[in-house]
Amino acid sequence: MSRRKRENRAPPFEQIAGNGLLHRRALLGGGIAFAGALTNGTALTGAAAAPLEEPAWSLEPGEVTPVLQKPSRFEAKVVRTLSNPKGDARTQHARTPLQMLNGTITPNPLHFTINHSGIPDIDPEKHVLVIHGMVKQPLEFTIDALMRYPMVTRKHFVECGGNSAPMFSPEPIQATVQALHGLSSCAEWTGVPLSILLDEAGADPKATWLVAEGADSLAVARSVPMKKAYDDAMIALYQNGERLMPGNGYPMRLLLPGYEGNMNVKFLRRIKVIDQPAMTYYESRNYSQLLPGGKAYKFYFVNEVKSFITQPSFGTSLKGPGFYEVSGIAYSGTGRIEKVLVSADGGKSWGEAAVEGPVSPKAFTRFVMPWRWDGQPAILTSRAWDDSVAAQPLRADFVAVRGEADKVPNVLGFPNQHYNSLTSWGIDPKGEISHVYA
Amino acid sequence: MSRRKRENRAPPFEQIAGNGLLHRRALLGGGIAFAGALTNGTALTGAAAAPLEEPAWSLEPGEVTPVLQKPSRFEAKVVRTLSNPKGDARTQHARTPLQMLNGTITPNPLHFTINHSGIPDIDPEKHVLVIHGMVKQPLEFTIDALMRYPMVTRKHFVECGGNSAPMFSPEPIQATVQALHGLSSCAEWTGVPLSILLDEAGADPKATWLVAEGADSLAVARSVPMKKAYDDAMIALYQNGERLMPGNGYPMRLLLPGYEGNMNVKFLRRIKVIDQPAMTYYESRNYSQLLPGGKAYKFYFVNEVKSFITQPSFGTSLKGPGFYEVSGIAYSGTGRIEKVLVSADGGKSWGEAAVEGPVSPKAFTRFVMPWRWDGQPAILTSRAWDDSVAAQPLRADFVAVRGEADKVPNVLGFPNQHYNSLTSWGIDPKGEISHVYA
Repeated sequence: MSRRKRENRAPPFEQIAGNGLLHRRALLGGGIAFAGALTNGTALTGAAAAPLEEPAWSLEPGEVTPVLQKPSRFEAKVVRTLSNPKGDARTQHARTPLQMLNGTITPNPLHFTINHSGIPDIDPEKHVLVIHGMVKQPLEFTIDALMRYPMVTRKHFVECGGNSAPMFSPEPIQATVQALHGLSSCAEWTGVPLSILLDEAGADPKATWLVAEGADSLAVARSVPMKKAYDDAMIALYQNGERLMPGNGYPMRLLLPGYEGNMNVKFLRRIKVIDQPAMTYYESRNYSQLLPGGKAYKFYFVNEVKSFITQPSFGTSLKGPGFYEVSGIAYSGTGRIEKVLVSADGGKSWGEAAVEGPVSPKAFTRFVMPWRWDGQPAILTSRAWDDSVAAQPLRADFVAVRGEADKVPNVLGFPNQHYNSLTSWGIDPKGEISHVYA
Repeated sequence: MSRRKRENRAPPFEQIAGNGLLHRRALLGGGIAFAGALTNGTALTGAAAAPLEEPAWSLEPGEVTPVLQKPSRFEAKVVRTLSNPKGDARTQHARTPLQMLNGTITPNPLHFTINHSGIPDIDPEKHVLVIHGMVKQPLEFTIDALMRYPMVTRKHFVECGGNSAPMFSPEPIQATVQALHGLSSCAEWTGVPLSILLDEAGADPKATWLVAEGADSLAVARSVPMKKAYDDAMIALYQNGERLMPGNGYPMRLLLPGYEGNMNVKFLRRIKVIDQPAMTYYESRNYSQLLPGGKAYKFYFVNEVKSFITQPSFGTSLKGPGFYEVSGIAYSGTGRIEKVLVSADGGKSWGEAAVEGPVSPKAFTRFVMPWRWDGQPAILTSRAWDDSVAAQPLRADFVAVRGEADKVPNVLGFPNQHYNSLTSWGIDPKGEISHVYA
């Protein structure tokens, strides 16, 4: 943005959709964000500022530098929420506070985790990966051996197939983004392309599947098409630059970009090359997609195109009329986010949000949209498209095919999965925010 | 990589430069990485693998999920090194262990920090940013006010101008990448473009500089050209998605992509718009660039194009001949990394490394190169170019202009700065690695 542009700026408050959604050009040249400064800032008198106050931290030396940094004590609320904080003998979920984060990277301490039998404390010196089955030469890889292989680095989201399950409720559940969509995170992963290791073992061209198994006591096993294994699968060793977090699969996990979280087998210890799906518990019973009428999809691997607004959202409120930035996350398991539309009137009119680049495929993409709230009721929602021409389905269309919670069999507590329709936030004249279906 | 390609693969061991540097095509189809597997893996007998051992972690439930994850206890060595661990009344450096990391993101706990008077414990509710000086309307911004402004998200490195100072030594210092180059890190930053706030305050078009001041007891102040302020400067609030680390400037810092770290004023509390540089202590005395003959550059803001190999590097050793991946980091304060060349014979011949995409400007870029070590002496080095056509200077050329430590005045302990020439690792027949000048 050059200073020259200030001379030539767009008229303020240029709307591109109903109820105050503004063109990004409106941000050039000042004035559009003025309401925020007037409301929340204090103009100082005169051209020279009054002397600033000197708080304690400006008057004395600070704290000693630690070997590992951690967040400020004033950010103590920015934590994952736990479904099973005492670690009872059932699944433990830890949900990412997406409404308190920004950008596209989930810091490792906050990456969501689901562990069905706790988090194993694996000694990497004693852990091996075996590739066997329909191969010329079964192989065993230590971590030291894998570290010598060529690696790739890619930013990808991982999302539980059961994320957003509350969205199947017939009535909108009043809950934060963390509670609704917090089983989704995004990191930069570094690891060895699985294709290299399969070639190394000499995988049989007639093989069509592999089954991957974890070393934790649950021994999760999932079948993966060989086509995916040779496409973009990797044996991930690093997460945002450092070795994997224990809850995310240390010392290694299978990473299947865009495929539901559970298939990205953590604590990976075994890959067996086979010629049919193994139909394991975690693909034939749990993580199978039930439909209205008692039928089920046989497999439902991909997390399809999805978006939701993280700021503003339930759990916060608007501090009076004026300028706000609408900000959210979009991602797709079938490609790169191509565009995101935002509505402030519950879907009657839409404007195109700015998408931060460079946009990586199968990765969180941050979208932002300037908005001037006039203090009247509004409904904020977003809808994303990816470059495979997949569109996030409207709620009515989605429910017609997939049903709501009372129309879908809920077998032994496993709810419907793979919700990727819209999320809408209703705003009342007091600035209070509620979850609504629009 | 499709399975079809396996039929049509390049001959193994296709070299593109001397001493074993291989073409990336060599990785297709298996076999090239076989040596690694043979050396470090154990081939199992028969087509079906023997039953795997069942370690303790496969037989019992694991640990309870915490609200904040942290690395495995087996990664306890992956920490920052401290120059002043007791926090004596002098500068505290914490260096990033780049040789133990991969990819392009530095996890927040490991991001380098330098604090000259400790780390302030700032209450964000009581912190304000003031913009004053040559403006129509001086303004004061609380954090809440700033949070309503439009934000951008961008991946950028930050590097201390004094990083790599040991490279000015006439004899190569035997030290890790962390010790030599660890005052450099890369994160995804989210914040408000400074241009928006300057426009909001109505900065005088005749203003040519601003001076930015921090709220810590050091009150670092640095002058910044208005041209940079209107280019890509931001008031950063988030670091890899979460609010800034205390050591990196919580609750807000100035981010000047590509400019030396100290100018990216942390704990930012004041920006004064002015028409000449302020010539503060930290730009006229410290962080001023001395030259042979006692002269000095007046200002030296930009961290120019640079690269170094992180794996293999000093502090590790090669475990016998065979395949390795050479991996490193390249970045430039003047643009996007365009290419990186790698040499295994000390610069006699060069091959082009693969660069991981999408490549962001002024950000860490990971480069990788397959290499087959034959067990003979080798010298690994790298050289980067950016899209502004800047090339990383060869050491002889660099030293001719900038001098070495014994030829440059070392005033009160402040060594020469802004080293961006090559780093070379010598490898002897036993696989031991030493730092050499090539």
